[in-house]
Amino acid sequence: MNLSELGELPLVELIRGRFSGQRRGKLLRGIGDDAAVAGLPQGKLLTSTDIMAEGVHFDLSLVMPYQLGFKLVSVNVSDIYAMGGSPMQILLALALPGSTDTVFMERFFDGVSDALDLYGASLAGGDISASRSGMVLSATVIGQAQRPVLRSGARPGDALYVTGPLGDSASGLELLREIGSPLRLDRRFTRGALPWKIMEPLVRRHLLPLARKPGAWLGRATAMIDISDGLALDLNRMCAESGVGAVIDMESIPVSEGTRMTASVLKLDLMGLVLSGGEDYELLFAARGTLRRGRGGPVRIGEVVKGDGVVLRTADGDERALEPSGFEHFGGEGG
Amino acid sequence: MNLSELGELPLVELIRGRFSGQRRGKLLRGIGDDAAVAGLPQGKLLTSTDIMAEGVHFDLSLVMPYQLGFKLVSVNVSDIYAMGGSPMQILLALALPGSTDTVFMERFFDGVSDALDLYGASLAGGDISASRSGMVLSATVIGQAQRPVLRSGARPGDALYVTGPLGDSASGLELLREIGSPLRLDRRFTRGALPWKIMEPLVRRHLLPLARKPGAWLGRATAMIDISDGLALDLNRMCAESGVGAVIDMESIPVSEGTRMTASVLKLDLMGLVLSGGEDYELLFAARGTLRRGRGGPVRIGEVVKGDGVVLRTADGDERALEPSGFEHFGGEGG
Repeated sequence: MNLSELGELPLVELIRGRFSGQRRGKLLRGIGDDAAVAGLPQGKLLTSTDIMAEGVHFDLSLVMPYQLGFKLVSVNVSDIYAMGGSPMQILLALALPGSTDTVFMERFFDGVSDALDLYGASLAGGDISASRSGMVLSATVIGQAQRPVLRSGARPGDALYVTGPLGDSASGLELLREIGSPLRLDRRFTRGALPWKIMEPLVRRHLLPLARKPGAWLGRATAMIDISDGLALDLNRMCAESGVGAVIDMESIPVSEGTRMTASVLKLDLMGLVLSGGEDYELLFAARGTLRRGRGGPVRIGEVVKGDGVVLRTADGDERALEPSGFEHFGGEGG
Repeated sequence: MNLSELGELPLVELIRGRFSGQRRGKLLRGIGDDAAVAGLPQGKLLTSTDIMAEGVHFDLSLVMPYQLGFKLVSVNVSDIYAMGGSPMQILLALALPGSTDTVFMERFFDGVSDALDLYGASLAGGDISASRSGMVLSATVIGQAQRPVLRSGARPGDALYVTGPLGDSASGLELLREIGSPLRLDRRFTRGALPWKIMEPLVRRHLLPLARKPGAWLGRATAMIDISDGLALDLNRMCAESGVGAVIDMESIPVSEGTRMTASVLKLDLMGLVLSGGEDYELLFAARGTLRRGRGGPVRIGEVVKGDGVVLRTADGDERALEPSGFEHFGGEGG
């Protein structure tokens, strides 16, 4: 059955039933009224919205509905983590072609539900419209923080850190394009450019990204952003907001063995994947002083300096400007 | 210049500049970070989302961009008013074809800005994506209420009220379709089925709807909903949530002279316009006892009874079930 046959009201009832048993958190009233009602958070209220559009952010020939739902929640929660906050609730705004299968929507909401459980957030409501054309999925996340960490707090002398390897999501997308079909990640896929053991974490990073929650170091962070559009673009954003510059060492940026192998096998520009690939949803932050280096902890990649712009220092000591380039939706000159 | 030429980052900067001088309300940090930061509201937190999709909710050959922006804010604020709350902030999620003109976007944001000023809310952020197909505009509104009025509080014996005439928006849309081109409402339009003095308030109700703020009677309301999909559908929704039935008198439903004239001249079903036209954004509420009848105040249209479903009593004493029919996006059997 597709949505044209099912109709809007039964679809809303289906979703409502699906989420009636959810852990409600501070939610006093969820789906089924003009607005959701929640108890007050502590500290400050955080709000953010992210869209995923068919043909721009995803290709239905490469992604499964469960993965879309999970990712939509993750990319939104990532913005709350990037403020040093905790997510409380999500609202969805979905524009769907009438031909969308109801099984597709059930799987999509399975992904939404699993991600919400993972992050301890609730589905507070949303709106669904027919779309005369492609699928447009957007979500708004509401969260709270005692002390939000803005992009604007970086000061000269602060060290710059990232919370994990960069380029894995872009590598995963390239591998997926090479495979050319959706992948269930719980099944071994043996036809691919690389062994499944190498490919799986990369493809997973792209299809089912996990928002990175700040660790105990959060209290030391002076500025923070999530790396959604690539280090080059997001670091330049943080510097612009803080009115500072940055110098980073290419050698110190964490890069997984899988991403190196992908670049080599698929003949891709490794630096491009790492600096501008985007969608890794690792955190980039500035901190005063030096954090204790722990296994799996943040990796220092450079430092904040006076001035503006970002300088990239390569292994042989060359320095070049790292331009704010990354994923650009409208393909304009900013990209 | 269109958005493909301008690019995403300059577009975001343009919007950010446009709203840098806005009254910030409780907003401590707006556009330009991973999430907006706001001070805590008082009472309860309200959240709601509404979508407007091209070809479903609007037709670009009949609407001006200013009107789209204004209406997007109004329909969202209406959900907060329908909970007895006050809007605090709005986030936008816009999927736009690359061919969209930047002047179109400026006018759109003029409409957003004027509506935000009117309702005392702030633009807290949003996301913009290219759309490979039509335009999908959605907004999420965050508000607060000391005592939210749910849909579920109606009890047998309560009287039912609406805050204004029904059918004007649907009449305005029919007149607009007849005219067949976008209308600036500040200019007299003399070619139309009816005199401009009659048409103007109807077309305005459709293009630039005002969210209806509850009056002093709010404390008496036991259940409330905004009439966005038509009285038939929205009253049935309120009854279903409250576990009650309702009896309404067709004669008592306020209908403007303009809507009567439109039905007559365009040979439309008047009851259809009034009961299922939708988009009036008047409030429907239940209240204990009888409200003092004031000029421009709520109009009593019936009462809440035990049981379920809605009975419509006509002038000649006939009674029939009022089915939950109204605007249905996917054209399914619920509609």
